[in-house]
Amino acid sequence: MTREVAGKAGRGYFLEDFAVGQILSHAVPRTVTRGDLAVYNCIYGDRHPLYTSDPFARSCGLNASPVHDLLVFHIVFGKTVGDLSLNAIANLGYAEARFLKPVNYGDTLHAHSKVIGIKENSNGRTGIIWVETTGLDQSETPVLTYKRWVMIRKRNEKEPPCETVVPATLPAVPAEDLPVPRGLDFRVFDTGATGETYRVGDYTVGEMIDHVDCTTLTDTEHMLATRIYHNTARVHFDINARPDRQRLIYGGHMISLARAFTCNGLANAQIILAINSGTHVNPAFAGETVTARTEVIDHADHPTPGAGALRLRTRLGRTGDDGIDPYDDANLLLDLDYWCLMPR
Amino acid sequence: MTREVAGKAGRGYFLEDFAVGQILSHAVPRTVTRGDLAVYNCIYGDRHPLYTSDPFARSCGLNASPVHDLLVFHIVFGKTVGDLSLNAIANLGYAEARFLKPVNYGDTLHAHSKVIGIKENSNGRTGIIWVETTGLDQSETPVLTYKRWVMIRKRNEKEPPCETVVPATLPAVPAEDLPVPRGLDFRVFDTGATGETYRVGDYTVGEMIDHVDCTTLTDTEHMLATRIYHNTARVHFDINARPDRQRLIYGGHMISLARAFTCNGLANAQIILAINSGTHVNPAFAGETVTARTEVIDHADHPTPGAGALRLRTRLGRTGDDGIDPYDDANLLLDLDYWCLMPR
Amino acid sequence: MTREVAGKAGRGYFLEDFAVGQILSHAVPRTVTRGDLAVYNCIYGDRHPLYTSDPFARSCGLNASPVHDLLVFHIVFGKTVGDLSLNAIANLGYAEARFLKPVNYGDTLHAHSKVIGIKENSNGRTGIIWVETTGLDQSETPVLTYKRWVMIRKRNEKEPPCETVVPATLPAVPAEDLPVPRGLDFRVFDTGATGETYRVGDYTVGEMIDHVDCTTLTDTEHMLATRIYHNTARVHFDINARPDRQRLIYGGHMISLARAFTCNGLANAQIILAINSGTHVNPAFAGETVTARTEVIDHADHPTPGAGALRLRTRLGRTGDDGIDPYDDANLLLDLDYWCLMPR
Repeated sequence: MTREVAGKAGRGYFLEDFAVGQILSHAVPRTVTRGDLAVYNCIYGDRHPLYTSDPFARSCGLNASPVHDLLVFHIVFGKTVGDLSLNAIANLGYAEARFLKPVNYGDTLHAHSKVIGIKENSNGRTGIIWVETTGLDQSETPVLTYKRWVMIRKRNEKEPPCETVVPATLPAVPAEDLPVPRGLDFRVFDTGATGETYRVGDYTVGEMIDHVDCTTLTDTEHMLATRIYHNTARVHFDINARPDRQRLIYGGHMISLARAFTCNGLANAQIILAINSGTHVNPAFAGETVTARTEVIDHADHPTPGAGALRLRTRLGRTGDDGIDPYDDANLLLDLDYWCLMPR
Repeated sequence: MTREVAGKAGRGYFLEDFAVGQILSHAVPRTVTRGDLAVYNCIYGDRHPLYTSDPFARSCGLNASPVHDLLVFHIVFGKTVGDLSLNAIANLGYAEARFLKPVNYGDTLHAHSKVIGIKENSNGRTGIIWVETTGLDQSETPVLTYKRWVMIRKRNEKEPPCETVVPATLPAVPAEDLPVPRGLDFRVFDTGATGETYRVGDYTVGEMIDHVDCTTLTDTEHMLATRIYHNTARVHFDINARPDRQRLIYGGHMISLARAFTCNGLANAQIILAINSGTHVNPAFAGETVTARTEVIDHADHPTPGAGALRLRTRLGRTGDDGIDPYDDANLLLDLDYWCLMPR
Repeated sequence: MTREVAGKAGRGYFLEDFAVGQILSHAVPRTVTRGDLAVYNCIYGDRHPLYTSDPFARSCGLNASPVHDLLVFHIVFGKTVGDLSLNAIANLGYAEARFLKPVNYGDTLHAHSKVIGIKENSNGRTGIIWVETTGLDQSETPVLTYKRWVMIRKRNEKEPPCETVVPATLPAVPAEDLPVPRGLDFRVFDTGATGETYRVGDYTVGEMIDHVDCTTLTDTEHMLATRIYHNTARVHFDINARPDRQRLIYGGHMISLARAFTCNGLANAQIILAINSGTHVNPAFAGETVTARTEVIDHADHPTPGAGALRLRTRLGRTGDDGIDPYDDANLLLDLDYWCLMPR
């Protein structure tokens, strides 16, 4: 691979640098601590008790609160940015994200990615790469895998088109393939800790939940978050990286905001088992006000004692002005389809 | 109780939902960590060594630094917001807050409230509820109690007025009823650690201290703080929640700012034993610059070895422009009356 | 010493209050935790694995990640502000900073300073003091020493000039006097953890590295940082402290930003051994976009197994507009000369 350099500083890779089958081992290993949770909490205010209370986590069969699932996701994702997306034009989608095991505070995460697909666009200037990324702990145990595809620049338009391999991705993780977090047991789940009594069976397919909460985005908050994850994409930090001189908000920030909003109405959906798909439909900027709505897509049995799985589609969109529809094509920011684990 | 819902998402309770004697058990239990202190510290810069230094805390008889008293207060308060004040118009006051025991990092806090008073306003659209809130640790030991009253909307103006019960509240916690934090001992208190030599006997009743420090408020800072406390009141986060499109700063943020300012001039007032009363006189917004002044109200003996209690009135107000009086009716933001423990 | 007071609140010292040989013992002792690292990380995004990964730190001979060197520097520096620089006009420079030993999380830092020089300026209104500051842990072991000089106001212009003592400071810490961090061993240094293969011998004297990353400064971020360090200088927090109503960004914030930028191009320069000199050439304000460039000044042998020392000059300057030179006299913000430890 030929990294563009400014002296010895890397400028990231281009389409020509990737080939199907290639494995990229990402820097920088990162020990996750309760301090990271505190920072995550002050940015999102997530209130799932499995992640906020050690006694509650113990009542669910764990030794202590595990690391927040989206903190794991963003940290693993962040490690890939320097290798995959410094020259990305757009983060096109995610699929088949499986949260394989709860991560403990004190664990150290690292990640690698395998290139599983590549396709040049007809304009000859850009293309798409597909990768499968795995996050691992210090004992090399995988904790998260996901597929992602990204639109990326060619270094040189005059190069001939690269090979084309378009991998298959599943539209959703099948219920029978959902991860089973080791040790988790929801048989004595205390709904008093969440403030809501609804269990998995109380949600019906097609049901809609408006999550009420709204927040007006600020630049500082998304930058603080993005740095936790060691995501260095300049477009999030430098107003000169875009012609409109606005900092683009990292898409993962929107995922965490949406998930925190669901604490109102889906308070017992404690843990994300899988992300089926995720799309950042429009870019988001500071000053915009966002809200979220969830549709219940499916439910399924799950081997975790006392639990069932709920498939949800949560959308986050712009709100504020009279008559605005946060979920229309112009205002929708995030469309996320995922499986959660709930008490039954 | 009938919570307003948007699908399964709660919109909070209204005046008609409350009755004297009712007990509300609040979600979400929360394990407090050194990470929370670090976040608290970066927002307020509080410099009381009992809360910043383990060796100093050991020299005062404790095993380690306890959780900052106002972090405990805000976390307990935050738990009540979803049940008590999502539909509040104004947080009218506090009384009889007693900090019953030092909380240790690793402890998990939860809270419940008892409705102790209710009164409909003559306009028929709003009323006041009084509650007594108790914060407890994971062993169900109370760590904090306080009374608070809130103006709240009626759901339906046409409902007949509710019963009227106006509870008695003390103007101040009597000195002889002040909590005695277990294990604390100020006999070898090192004033070198605080940088000020003044002990409780050096303060005279009526003495005024201008705390010199000023800070210009930002929206991001008060939102980061408010989320630590799991306080979800939308008016703090969403510019569309008020006609002037300004985010209202959470009153507890002002209390913590004021307390941090007092590190200059009252550096040895290590710990809050009780809050006698607290009023948020005017709303506060980003861009305003605040400063604080304290008047010494009283002192009293206290059973803690080497210590005495000092009753203080700290006011926080807007400053900046020429000739402005931060403490007049137009500019005063916070008026707080409390007892601190100091070395004697 | 005669501190200016507002009631019992200190307003800091003036030139007349200092004398050569004086020792100032600074408040407030501070236990440093992983929470502080998490906050530091969300503000700077520093990616040196020695500071982000316990397993990596163990592979380098330590028991766990030490406290980030610049977090130590800023905390020690912050302790001195109340005594040295509340009435400072300008922070003129640093010299001979030696990072004597890795600090462990859980250690408690305090500091003292000795006045080593003083000189009144010809205008009769200001002067310069030189101090040597030492940061120590809870066992009174020095962890950092540095010299610093500051321009400070006289309280009273009519006072006769003070004595003049101008101390010698070295232009750089000689290679043979560099600290040797106990226990560190780079013989099995894994460059996969940093993402760059360059070792100390790969850098040639005179080589330039442009670090690519840019960030647009915000007020909230520098205030959050400055409060971690207990630095209370009002000019960083209060828009009324300067005629232009801008908050001056704490110079240490610029040092940490610059150091984080160097993770791209100098990823293996794991640890700062010494700061030879540092100058804040122009003041920095929110809204400005900064970038960094490093020149390799020298290399030297070092007793740490598997390691060598690299002397670097990193400059941070304003960028963004077409044709701007971030490193010219008008735009240069920081000029920092320091020694790092790298694998060889």
